[in-house]
Amino acid sequence: MTRVRIDLNISLDGYSANDQTLENPMGEDWARITAAYAATRTFHERVFGDTSGTGTTGVDDSYAAAYFEGVGAEIMGPAMFGLHSFPDDPHWKGWWGDQPPFGTPVYVLTHTAPRPPIPMPGGTTFHFRSAPIEDVLAEATEAASGLDVRVGGGVSTARAFLRAGVVDHLHVAIAPMLVDRGDRLWDELRGLDLTHEVTTDVADSGTIHVTFAR
Amino acid sequence: MTRVRIDLNISLDGYSANDQTLENPMGEDWARITAAYAATRTFHERVFGDTSGTGTTGVDDSYAAAYFEGVGAEIMGPAMFGLHSFPDDPHWKGWWGDQPPFGTPVYVLTHTAPRPPIPMPGGTTFHFRSAPIEDVLAEATEAASGLDVRVGGGVSTARAFLRAGVVDHLHVAIAPMLVDRGDRLWDELRGLDLTHEVTTDVADSGTIHVTFAR
Repeated sequence: MTRVRIDLNISLDGYSANDQTLENPMGEDWARITAAYAATRTFHERVFGDTSGTGTTGVDDSYAAAYFEGVGAEIMGPAMFGLHSFPDDPHWKGWWGDQPPFGTPVYVLTHTAPRPPIPMPGGTTFHFRSAPIEDVLAEATEAASGLDVRVGGGVSTARAFLRAGVVDHLHVAIAPMLVDRGDRLWDELRGLDLTHEVTTDVADSGTIHVTFAR
Repeated sequence: MTRVRIDLNISLDGYSANDQTLENPMGEDWARITAAYAATRTFHERVFGDTSGTGTTGVDDSYAAAYFEGVGAEIMGPAMFGLHSFPDDPHWKGWWGDQPPFGTPVYVLTHTAPRPPIPMPGGTTFHFRSAPIEDVLAEATEAASGLDVRVGGGVSTARAFLRAGVVDHLHVAIAPMLVDRGDRLWDELRGLDLTHEVTTDVADSGTIHVTFAR
């Protein structure tokens, strides 16, 4: 049974990547917001390719491992792919290098001219869609073949899916810091705790993990 | 050594009391935001006067007990006292009945006409001050005689003291719910995690306790 999932790293005041520039595409606070996640053994293995067993274990690592499990298709907003940064470059292939870590179809939402799909080594293919989010979700769900569909980000894309009521599982890893800049995840989400069961957890790093699931 | 302390109950999206009306002076979400706190044994004893030992123990109760310890003077904003609700009633004595739970001098910030102090049974005396917050804080610190000064609320008053850089200890009990209404505590507090040490904790109730201390 496919679930629609969102996993985000945010600050205590609800912000994620902010102040993006070409030189610093995730913004100046991103490294600190994601520091505990990047320190996990799972992240070392799956993103850095470091299989020597370095990195933290424990609560943060459990959530990091779950992040990489069971996703059959990904949806992301145009800014996350980089379309806002490189609108006129038809050869732009995202921020993730020659072998993106997704390994699944990735549906990039866009309102600009359609682009042909971009197949990449490692099983990732980027598709570009200007359809309503419900239509893109239906296509991604079919492509996921019973695995989960992840809505990746950014925050405004995640919030659009949350507000549409189609998200089954939201996990946020909250770094205990205040950044006061960017798009705030929590705007206009009153009552999500009434439609979903909420669980809270704290890691040794101080990171607060909150999960809304139905 | 006097510390300046703030203890607040807020939602995951950073709101406290909201939508206040005369019929429901704390707003419709307040009971849910404070449910875990009101369920503690300490709250039962200290606020309800119920010494039969009912109420939860554990993490929430530890923070509730700390809330009542070591405060020698209190400062609050006009809305918390009720001046906005009853601006023309010189006999209004706050929301707390004949014996308010403070037991200390309470300095109520106001920009309206000065009122004489109101001594109450149980050691509470309400004073009304239209001076700058630094001056009121100096007076409250002297009155506290080495105990702590608490800045009680509401959120805008708490934020004014936080932004002035005079708060030594901020404890928030975060209910894992989204209300999306009211004054948001976290606005314009970027970097509080850099000047204060942050600790995080989760109770069985799901309440997230975050403390900023220096």
